[in-house]
Amino acid sequence: MKIAVYPGSFDPVTNGHLDVIERAARLFDHLIIAVAQNQAKTPLFSVEERLDMLRACTRHLVNVSVDSYSSLTVEYARSKGAEVLVRGLRAVSDFENEFLMALMNRKMEPAIETVFMMTSNQYAFLSSSAVKEVASLGGQVEGLVPPVVAAALKQKFASHQQNQRLRS
Amino acid sequence: MKIAVYPGSFDPVTNGHLDVIERAARLFDHLIIAVAQNQAKTPLFSVEERLDMLRACTRHLVNVSVDSYSSLTVEYARSKGAEVLVRGLRAVSDFENEFLMALMNRKMEPAIETVFMMTSNQYAFLSSSAVKEVASLGGQVEGLVPPVVAAALKQKFASHQQNQRLRS
Amino acid sequence: MKIAVYPGSFDPVTNGHLDVIERAARLFDHLIIAVAQNQAKTPLFSVEERLDMLRACTRHLVNVSVDSYSSLTVEYARSKGAEVLVRGLRAVSDFENEFLMALMNRKMEPAIETVFMMTSNQYAFLSSSAVKEVASLGGQVEGLVPPVVAAALKQKFASHQQNQRLRS
Amino acid sequence: MKIAVYPGSFDPVTNGHLDVIERAARLFDHLIIAVAQNQAKTPLFSVEERLDMLRACTRHLVNVSVDSYSSLTVEYARSKGAEVLVRGLRAVSDFENEFLMALMNRKMEPAIETVFMMTSNQYAFLSSSAVKEVASLGGQVEGLVPPVVAAALKQKFASHQQNQRLRS
Amino acid sequence: MKIAVYPGSFDPVTNGHLDVIERAARLFDHLIIAVAQNQAKTPLFSVEERLDMLRACTRHLVNVSVDSYSSLTVEYARSKGAEVLVRGLRAVSDFENEFLMALMNRKMEPAIETVFMMTSNQYAFLSSSAVKEVASLGGQVEGLVPPVVAAALKQKFASHQQNQRLRS
Amino acid sequence: MKIAVYPGSFDPVTNGHLDVIERAARLFDHLIIAVAQNQAKTPLFSVEERLDMLRACTRHLVNVSVDSYSSLTVEYARSKGAEVLVRGLRAVSDFENEFLMALMNRKMEPAIETVFMMTSNQYAFLSSSAVKEVASLGGQVEGLVPPVVAAALKQKFASHQQNQRLRS
Repeated sequence: MKIAVYPGSFDPVTNGHLDVIERAARLFDHLIIAVAQNQAKTPLFSVEERLDMLRACTRHLVNVSVDSYSSLTVEYARSKGAEVLVRGLRAVSDFENEFLMALMNRKMEPAIETVFMMTSNQYAFLSSSAVKEVASLGGQVEGLVPPVVAAALKQKFASHQQNQRLRS
Repeated sequence: MKIAVYPGSFDPVTNGHLDVIERAARLFDHLIIAVAQNQAKTPLFSVEERLDMLRACTRHLVNVSVDSYSSLTVEYARSKGAEVLVRGLRAVSDFENEFLMALMNRKMEPAIETVFMMTSNQYAFLSSSAVKEVASLGGQVEGLVPPVVAAALKQKFASHQQNQRLRS
Repeated sequence: MKIAVYPGSFDPVTNGHLDVIERAARLFDHLIIAVAQNQAKTPLFSVEERLDMLRACTRHLVNVSVDSYSSLTVEYARSKGAEVLVRGLRAVSDFENEFLMALMNRKMEPAIETVFMMTSNQYAFLSSSAVKEVASLGGQVEGLVPPVVAAALKQKFASHQQNQRLRS
Repeated sequence: MKIAVYPGSFDPVTNGHLDVIERAARLFDHLIIAVAQNQAKTPLFSVEERLDMLRACTRHLVNVSVDSYSSLTVEYARSKGAEVLVRGLRAVSDFENEFLMALMNRKMEPAIETVFMMTSNQYAFLSSSAVKEVASLGGQVEGLVPPVVAAALKQKFASHQQNQRLRS
Repeated sequence: MKIAVYPGSFDPVTNGHLDVIERAARLFDHLIIAVAQNQAKTPLFSVEERLDMLRACTRHLVNVSVDSYSSLTVEYARSKGAEVLVRGLRAVSDFENEFLMALMNRKMEPAIETVFMMTSNQYAFLSSSAVKEVASLGGQVEGLVPPVVAAALKQKFASHQQNQRLRS
Repeated sequence: MKIAVYPGSFDPVTNGHLDVIERAARLFDHLIIAVAQNQAKTPLFSVEERLDMLRACTRHLVNVSVDSYSSLTVEYARSKGAEVLVRGLRAVSDFENEFLMALMNRKMEPAIETVFMMTSNQYAFLSSSAVKEVASLGGQVEGLVPPVVAAALKQKFASHQQNQRLRS
C-alpha cells in the first residue's frame, strides 16, 4: 500500500490545490493532506479553520484524509508510513523553490520520494496569497476557491473591515 | 481612443519606470500612471509624495496623467475606461511574477489586456528597492532616479540618520 | 494611426497564434501578419500555403492583413510605416529568446517598439512544431489549429506516408 | 495495479536515467521503459541496440520491462493500460520543455497523468548528448553510463575513427 | 596581487559557503570574507558570532581573512584594494537576483569585477535559511554546516525552546 | 602564475566576446582564447579565419594568446597548465546550458575551476548566430562586431549572394 503526503500551508485551500489532491488520490492508495503548523509568517486562517475547510471540500474522496503537523515534513511522512511527498507545479512555476525543498528533503530522508504533478492549466495563476489579496480588496473569488472557502474569506474580510471602521 | 494604465507602487519612481512611461506614452492615446495604495509592506514615501514626484518628472508628457487607487487594479482600469495594462520587463527579469499577475487580472477582467514592454537595457538592474538600499547606505543614486527623487531620497535618509543619532 | 506587425514563420498558424492576432487587432489600428521567408530550416508548408491559411482564418478581422517578407524584420516594419512589433508569450515560456530578439531589434531600429502579449492559458502548450509532430504521428489536431490547417496537415502527412510506401 | 511508462530516446541510457528508473520502479506496480522510434534526428544507436542496453542494465528490477513504440506517447501508454507517464527532472533543468510536453500530452489524453521525479543530484549535469560528445572526443564515460554502455560507446567511436581513417 | 571579497550575511556559514571559500582561495592571492551588517531582516546570530564561526572554520586557509562592513559592498571592496567580488551559484539557482546585484555593483563601481563560481553539486539545496528552519524543528544539520555551527545552532534553538517553555 | 582558458567557437568573435576577453585579461596572468574545432554544426568561418580575426582584435592585450583545439576542453586546459575556464554570461542568459557544461567539466577534471563573468549590459542581446543572421540579410553589424569581423562578414555574404546569382 502506497501512502502519499501532500504537505502545505493551505491558507486557504484553492481550486489549484484541489486539482492536485484529486489527481494524487487517483495515483496512490492513501493521500494525507498535511497542514504545516510551523509557518513563521502569520496565517489568515487558524490551523483548525484550515483543516475544517480541507475536510469539507475533500469529503467525496474516500482515500484522502486531512491532518496537521509541526515537525520536519519528512519526519511527519515517515511517522505515517508514507513513501511519497506530492507537490503541485503550476505552468507558470515556482519550480526552483520546489526543487530546493525536495533536494533538502531527500538529503534528510532518502527513502521518501518527492513527485511533482502539474496543476491544471486553468489554475496556473492561482495561489493562496493571490486569492487573499483579491478577497481583501473586495474582489470575486468564486471559481478560484471552493464555495466553503469563498464564504470564509468573505466573512474574514468583512469582520476585518468592520474592525477597522470601529477603530477609526 | 486607447487608454492605458501603468500600475505600480513607484516607491520611488526610477529611471527604469520613466523609460517605460515614455515608451508607453508613444503607443497609446492616454496613459494613466496609477499608484497602488493597498500595499501591505510599509512604503518609504507616502502616496502623496509618490504622486508629487511622478507629476514632477512626467510634466513634459502631454498625454500622461498621475493618479492613485486602492481597489483591484482591473476594477480601477475599468472605471477609467482603460483597455490596457502596461507592465515593464527588465532584461534580467521578474517575468514569472508578472505573468502570474497578468493571468490573474485576465481571469478577473478578460476585457482588459496586459502588454509587456522592455525597459531599456541600461536600466536592467534598477528597482525601487535597490535604489532605496543604495541611498540608505549613503551611495550615489544620480543616474538611477530623476533629480527630484534623488533629492527626496537624500532628505529622507538624512532625517532618518538624525533621528537615529538623537535616539542613541 | 498605429500600425503593428506580428512577424513569425507560422508553419502552420495555430490557435495560439490566432488568439494573439485577435488580441492585437483590438489594440492597434492595423495589424500586419508577416510570414518570414528567410528561415534556414526547411518549412513543412510553402510561404504561399502559409499565407493562404492565414488569410482563410483571419477573414473576419477587418483591420488585419497578411504579407510575407525576406529582409530584416525591423526593416520590413519600417517600410510599412509600423511602429510596433507584436510577440506572443506562452504561460510556459520561451521568454528568453523573445527578449534577446527584441533587444537586437531595438538596437537596429530604436523607433520600433516590441510589445509582448500573453497567449490564452489554454494554448500554453501549443507550438507549430508540436502540432506538426502530433499530426505526423496520426494524432488529432482539432482544437489545436483552425479547421483549414487541420485539413492541410492531414493531406500533407497522408501524401508523405503514401510516398514512403511507394518508395519502400 | 498501477502501470507507468517512462518514455524517452535513451540514445544511450545514462546513469541519470537508471536513477529515475529505480526510483519509479519503487513507486509503481509495473514500469515500462519505452524507447521512442520516431525521432527525426538520427540516433547513434539503433532501436535494437538501445533496447538491448536497457535490458542489460535493468535485469535486476523485476517489475520493469523494456519496449519500443512509434506512435504518440499517450496512445502507446493507453494501449498498455498505463495511467502514468514518468519524466525525470535534473536539478539544472530542462523544466520548461518537459512541462510543455506534459501539457500537450494531457490535452490529448486527460486520463494519463505525468509525474516528475528528481534525478539524483550527482547526475544533474548528465545527458545522453553530453555523454556522446565526451565519448566522441575520447573522454572517459565510466561513472556516467552503465559499463555495458561505456563499452558500446567505445566500440562505436573506435569504428567511426577507423572509417574516417580509411576514407582519408 | 589580486584581492577578492566574498560578501554575504553568513547567518550562519554553511558547507556550501565553505566550498566556495576554498575554491576562491585557490584562484586569488587573498580572499576577504565580508559579513554584511546592514541587513534589514533580524539575523539569528550576531555579527560577532558570525565572524567567530567563520574564523573557526577557515583557520586552515592561510590567504583568507574575515571581516565585517556596513557600507555599500563596492565601497568596502575598494577600501580594501580588492578588484574582485566572488559570488557562489548553486546548481538550482538564485541566478537572477545575483545578476541584478552584480549589474548594480558594476554601475556603481566599474573597476570591480564580479565573478561567479559554482557551489559543489552536493550542496545545491543548501542555504542558511533552510539550515535554520531544519535546526528550529529539531532536525539534524550535521553534514550541512561545519561542526562549530551545528553546535551553535543546537544551543541557540535549545535556549529558544527553554524560553518558550518558561513563558507558557 | 594563473593561466585561464576562454573556450568557444567564436564564429565569429563579437564585441560581447571581446568585452569578456578584456575583463578576464585583467583578472588572470595569462588568458588563452581557445577556438573549438570539433563542432558538429558547419561553421561560417574556418578555424584559420576565426583565429586570424581573434588575433587581429586582441593585439593590444599583451597577456592574451589565441589557439585552437580539438580535444575535450578540460584536457586542452590541463595540457596548457590552466586552472581556470572563463565563460561569459549575458544579462539575458543561457545560464542553464553554461551550468550543465561547467558541471560536466568539473566531473571530468575537478582541478579546473569554471568562473562566470558578466558581459557588459550593452551586449546582452549579442550572439554570433544573431550577428550572422543580420549580416546574411544585409543588415548593419557595425557596433556589434570588431571592424575586421564586419568586413569579413560583408565579404562572406557578398560572395554567397554572387554564387546564388550565378547558380540561378
